[in-house]
Amino acid sequence: MATVQDKKRRKDTLTIAAAALAMLFFSTPPMSQGGDMEKITLPKPKTKGKMSVEEAIQRRRSVRSYAAKEISLEDISQLLWACQGITSERGNLRSAPSAGALYPLEIYVAKNDGLFHYIPQGHLLEKVSGGDLRRDLANAAYGQSFVAEAPVDIIITAVHSRITPRYGDRGIRYTDMEVGHAAENLFLQAVALGLDSVAVGAFSDTEVGRILKLPSGSKPLYILPVGYKK
Amino acid sequence: MATVQDKKRRKDTLTIAAAALAMLFFSTPPMSQGGDMEKITLPKPKTKGKMSVEEAIQRRRSVRSYAAKEISLEDISQLLWACQGITSERGNLRSAPSAGALYPLEIYVAKNDGLFHYIPQGHLLEKVSGGDLRRDLANAAYGQSFVAEAPVDIIITAVHSRITPRYGDRGIRYTDMEVGHAAENLFLQAVALGLDSVAVGAFSDTEVGRILKLPSGSKPLYILPVGYKK
Repeated sequence: MATVQDKKRRKDTLTIAAAALAMLFFSTPPMSQGGDMEKITLPKPKTKGKMSVEEAIQRRRSVRSYAAKEISLEDISQLLWACQGITSERGNLRSAPSAGALYPLEIYVAKNDGLFHYIPQGHLLEKVSGGDLRRDLANAAYGQSFVAEAPVDIIITAVHSRITPRYGDRGIRYTDMEVGHAAENLFLQAVALGLDSVAVGAFSDTEVGRILKLPSGSKPLYILPVGYKK
Repeated sequence: MATVQDKKRRKDTLTIAAAALAMLFFSTPPMSQGGDMEKITLPKPKTKGKMSVEEAIQRRRSVRSYAAKEISLEDISQLLWACQGITSERGNLRSAPSAGALYPLEIYVAKNDGLFHYIPQGHLLEKVSGGDLRRDLANAAYGQSFVAEAPVDIIITAVHSRITPRYGDRGIRYTDMEVGHAAENLFLQAVALGLDSVAVGAFSDTEVGRILKLPSGSKPLYILPVGYKK
């Protein structure tokens, strides 16, 4: 056991050194993409609801056909909170667990009136651009047309440089798992709100990055269309 | 758009061909590890409960200190169902979404009286061995002692050969995300039952594979200790 712990200690020292070096060369992209962007304060999320955990798990199914019906800002707020909202002011801990609380995920919302970036601190949206990008996203997802039909697409992206200095290549695995945590919260929250969703992982990463004009170092990992089942 | 769809069609044809070839060379490990194993039928899971989705998300925190108090078989049953149980008999769909419904995950339970393998079909446990492996798992996780203290460790493993013939290397990403889906369901279910949990991803994959005597081709991805917070 001493050997295992010694190895761990040596490994820790190395990863801390690597992290320190990395911090000299990389800077984490700012949480906010700019001070001059239109900001939308979201309605305060509810921390109690009507559907139990068990019922939401039982009812959740992947839905790929959506009615032409908008989602309220209250519901969008609730979905974003479930996905990546702050659930403990102490330490700004979020709704989905993150290895080392490094929080590499950034969430975007594409809907008919533009592209928005979710800021957990303050629970608000920043407007990135005004166009409707859902059809372009559907094309980047090899023509999965429900990506364009859903009233809202929530895109989970990751900034790996926040996590790989500490965890190396294993940090990529941890990030993918964290995307799963965040997405599952969103799926269950959607069901609890009478909405449906699906995980879309098949798309051209490059195309989605170009369409969303993601900052360099940001990688798209999931597109989650949300809407009312047709 | 035609180009994108043509590319997709070509890619689909290629992946189907690759999958067909792969099926000639690989066989999926059996769902059950053997007919002569002791089987434990689990109590029927509840599909309604007392805590709402929102409250469970709000209350969930990573807990690394557990009281010496057992978890009932009812609760273990409920946790396994939330993690990977069958929620739709039609197609044997499970509690957590899986790319292409290929379901690469296999779940194990380590507790004081042995190691058990969860079988979603029939919602039962097969006893793999009789020893208490929690201390060995804690050592393989670089001495994270709460892995040994928790009354139950749930281990999520993956059989990548079920998914990579269809999705290639991207299937590894999809599997890691699916692990996240399954784990988050378990975390929320734990909270709803008055229990706590945490995601442990830092361990020697080789050591954990050896301790659990995992079938070749099975890879451990998460250890999820569950218990009552100390």
